[in-house]
Amino acid sequence: MAAPVIEADAVVIGAGPVGLFQVFQLGLHEVQAHVIDALPYAGGQCMELYADKPIYDIPGTPVTTGRGLTQSLLQQIAPFQAQMHFSQLVESVTRLEDGRLHLITDAGTTFIAKALFVAAGVGAFVPRKPAVPELEPFENLQVHYPHDAALTEGSLQGAHVVVLGGDESAVTAALQAAYAPVDAHRPASVTLIHRRDVFTGEPATLQQLDAARESGTIRVLPAQVTGCGTDGSRLNSLHVLTAEGTEISVAADHVLVRLGVSPKMGPIADWGWTLERKQVPVSTETFQSEIPGIFAVGDINFYPGKRKLILSGFHEATLASFAAMAFISPEKKVLLQYTTTSTRLHQLLGVGTQEKS
Amino acid sequence: MAAPVIEADAVVIGAGPVGLFQVFQLGLHEVQAHVIDALPYAGGQCMELYADKPIYDIPGTPVTTGRGLTQSLLQQIAPFQAQMHFSQLVESVTRLEDGRLHLITDAGTTFIAKALFVAAGVGAFVPRKPAVPELEPFENLQVHYPHDAALTEGSLQGAHVVVLGGDESAVTAALQAAYAPVDAHRPASVTLIHRRDVFTGEPATLQQLDAARESGTIRVLPAQVTGCGTDGSRLNSLHVLTAEGTEISVAADHVLVRLGVSPKMGPIADWGWTLERKQVPVSTETFQSEIPGIFAVGDINFYPGKRKLILSGFHEATLASFAAMAFISPEKKVLLQYTTTSTRLHQLLGVGTQEKS
Ligand SMILES: Cc1cc2nc3c(=O)[nH]c(=O)nc-3n(C[C@H](O)[C@H](O)[C@H](O)COP(=O)(O)OP(=O)(O)OC[C@H]3O[C@@H](n4cnc5c(N)ncnc54)[C@H](O)[C@@H]3O)c2cc1C
Ligand SMILES: Cc1cc2nc3c(=O)[nH]c(=O)nc-3n(C[C@H](O)[C@H](O)[C@H](O)COP(=O)(O)OP(=O)(O)OC[C@H]3O[C@@H](n4cnc5c(N)ncnc54)[C@H](O)[C@@H]3O)c2cc1C
Repeated sequence: MAAPVIEADAVVIGAGPVGLFQVFQLGLHEVQAHVIDALPYAGGQCMELYADKPIYDIPGTPVTTGRGLTQSLLQQIAPFQAQMHFSQLVESVTRLEDGRLHLITDAGTTFIAKALFVAAGVGAFVPRKPAVPELEPFENLQVHYPHDAALTEGSLQGAHVVVLGGDESAVTAALQAAYAPVDAHRPASVTLIHRRDVFTGEPATLQQLDAARESGTIRVLPAQVTGCGTDGSRLNSLHVLTAEGTEISVAADHVLVRLGVSPKMGPIADWGWTLERKQVPVSTETFQSEIPGIFAVGDINFYPGKRKLILSGFHEATLASFAAMAFISPEKKVLLQYTTTSTRLHQLLGVGTQEKS
Repeated sequence: MAAPVIEADAVVIGAGPVGLFQVFQLGLHEVQAHVIDALPYAGGQCMELYADKPIYDIPGTPVTTGRGLTQSLLQQIAPFQAQMHFSQLVESVTRLEDGRLHLITDAGTTFIAKALFVAAGVGAFVPRKPAVPELEPFENLQVHYPHDAALTEGSLQGAHVVVLGGDESAVTAALQAAYAPVDAHRPASVTLIHRRDVFTGEPATLQQLDAARESGTIRVLPAQVTGCGTDGSRLNSLHVLTAEGTEISVAADHVLVRLGVSPKMGPIADWGWTLERKQVPVSTETFQSEIPGIFAVGDINFYPGKRKLILSGFHEATLASFAAMAFISPEKKVLLQYTTTSTRLHQLLGVGTQEKS
């Protein structure tokens, strides 16, 4: 099967708040966008770092949460039917001879775009890895990150399972493995390893963990992973240093890594531009980078006066849309229309135009 | 009584959406603002031109109205207790020897400010005047604009009253004059003059007008005012050209002008700066004009790429606040803090800081 190639007017890297609003502004110009994000869902920092915390400086919204803002933006952009490509990291961007931009993701998808909007924030949110490089060859086989498709129902059956991490998602992964709904799917053992014997999460989740520890269903081990043991080509154990300072070996057929995510600038640094303090310098007229056709909006960009605020990203995405029309539809005359009064915008938004009073 | 003099860190001219959000951003920097507007209420164009029409491009707000947006912004800025000065036109701005800015309004109020934020939109909303300059000497005496303090209960008693205009506010003014709650306060006659015999307004209001016409309580005259007649120093009649082309005279002791408002750039043009197409050129780093300490935000400003959109004004007001701190508290270190996480901002906003989980 050949890897898919998607030709698009506009590709947006990043489904954070600014990438989402970029979709809206492109939509007002009748441009449908493709959006790519390393995370499996929209929202960027808002969802990943403060989904349930309040935010007070979105203009016209006295208070919402990271999640609430994300949901409102998704509702606002719904009329424009952007194509979302989640759980994919854009790895390379090059220019084709015809001037268009050529993107490849780590899922093997290729995009060919007339204009590219880099709304990559502080980098791609990728799962944090344990500091044990020897585990890398086993990734997706015996070492699993969140949303790993290789891990299906029953694949932990009879296995020694180790979960790494101390937050809600780690505790939940341990509980789900230990209490697999089908009895026959249950693993041989479940060990939850975290550097300290302190776990965070919903009270109900933590209560379930306590019960599982007491019944011996889950073994909790305050320790740090220092290496691993193999049996030929298979991983069979983790070497750990316990909180008490003892080195021990823990049987491990499958390791579920739940150490959270961290933003990684990664490939963006190598796309042929000069970064300033890890940010992409742009013009405040167009929000175009030094590379024609590549626009940078939100936390990823830099210009004199820049503040990493969501409301600034909204403005930047708006002006970038206007400027990008020179690449997307050079023949089209670009006019500012008000959403309040334009019949054409009402059609695009799928709302009825009110009669003039 | 001496005219009041108000010393302030920050004065904002214009209570449109951008002036209101300017208050919010200044508040986050612990600066309390004074806001001046020619209109008797907040909202600028949103309230004056599309209060009840939908608006779709406020980021994070899929749909609201001009009024809804204004109310949300007022709620959002409430913690910062800005002083509002309505129904006043700022007429002059000069610089004092100590570097501060000196403003005078047509209500005689003087402000002395460290920093001035001009959020004047497309100009001050001032009542439209009839094209009859001879009426000017009678303003506030016998010729009354909306919110004229000279017009008190009973002041139309026994008088010949003429209302000019064709919209809801004109029809309502005619009805209120004709049906004064205290019988003794009723005028001798009420004439409603509008160029065409077509009136706009709520159905209930228009029905009341129909009833008042039938009973002879209000006389409706499709006509244009061309001049006036006086009796020494008093106005006693209006000269009009009727829709049929006849010139007649209408008895008039009091004229209520209800011709709507129109934005007037007026004095702003004379504050010592060079305007470009009626807009104030600013830096996109600071949103400062060519005059130190005077910032211009929202529809009134200009820079390459400028689009007259509310969301751009929000960004501009935010960066202007940061830059203005050099004038307001030069000794203070200005840091970007997130409303989500800063305990200090939570105190200022009057919200509880959530415990860390
Ligand atoms: C705790 C906290 C509180 C905050 N509070 C506030 C506040 O009160 N007000 C405010 O205005 N701001 C606040 N911020 C900042 C705000 O969240 C950011 O300004 C905003 O998220 C930036 O949006 P963005 O869309 O530019 O980037 P992000 O939200 O960072 O989203 C970028 C997205 O791009 C994806 N991505 C990056 N590179 C790639 C790639 N190569 N391939 C695929 N996907 C990629 C990432 O996975 C990510 O999802 C806060 C931030 C934090 C951490
Ligand atoms: C019908 C219509 C539909 C619109 N639809 C949209 C839309 O869908 N999206 C969008 O983003 N924008 C829209 N706009 C534009 C939007 O309303 C303006 O961008 C916005 O109002 C600008 O805000 P502002 O605060 O800069 O100025 P304004 O709203 O114009 O407010 C300026 C205020 O300053 C006061 N003022 C000025 N000079 C003085 C003075 N010397 N003394 C005292 N007071 C003074 C005025 O009285 C006024 O109240 C629309 C505009 C109209 C007319």
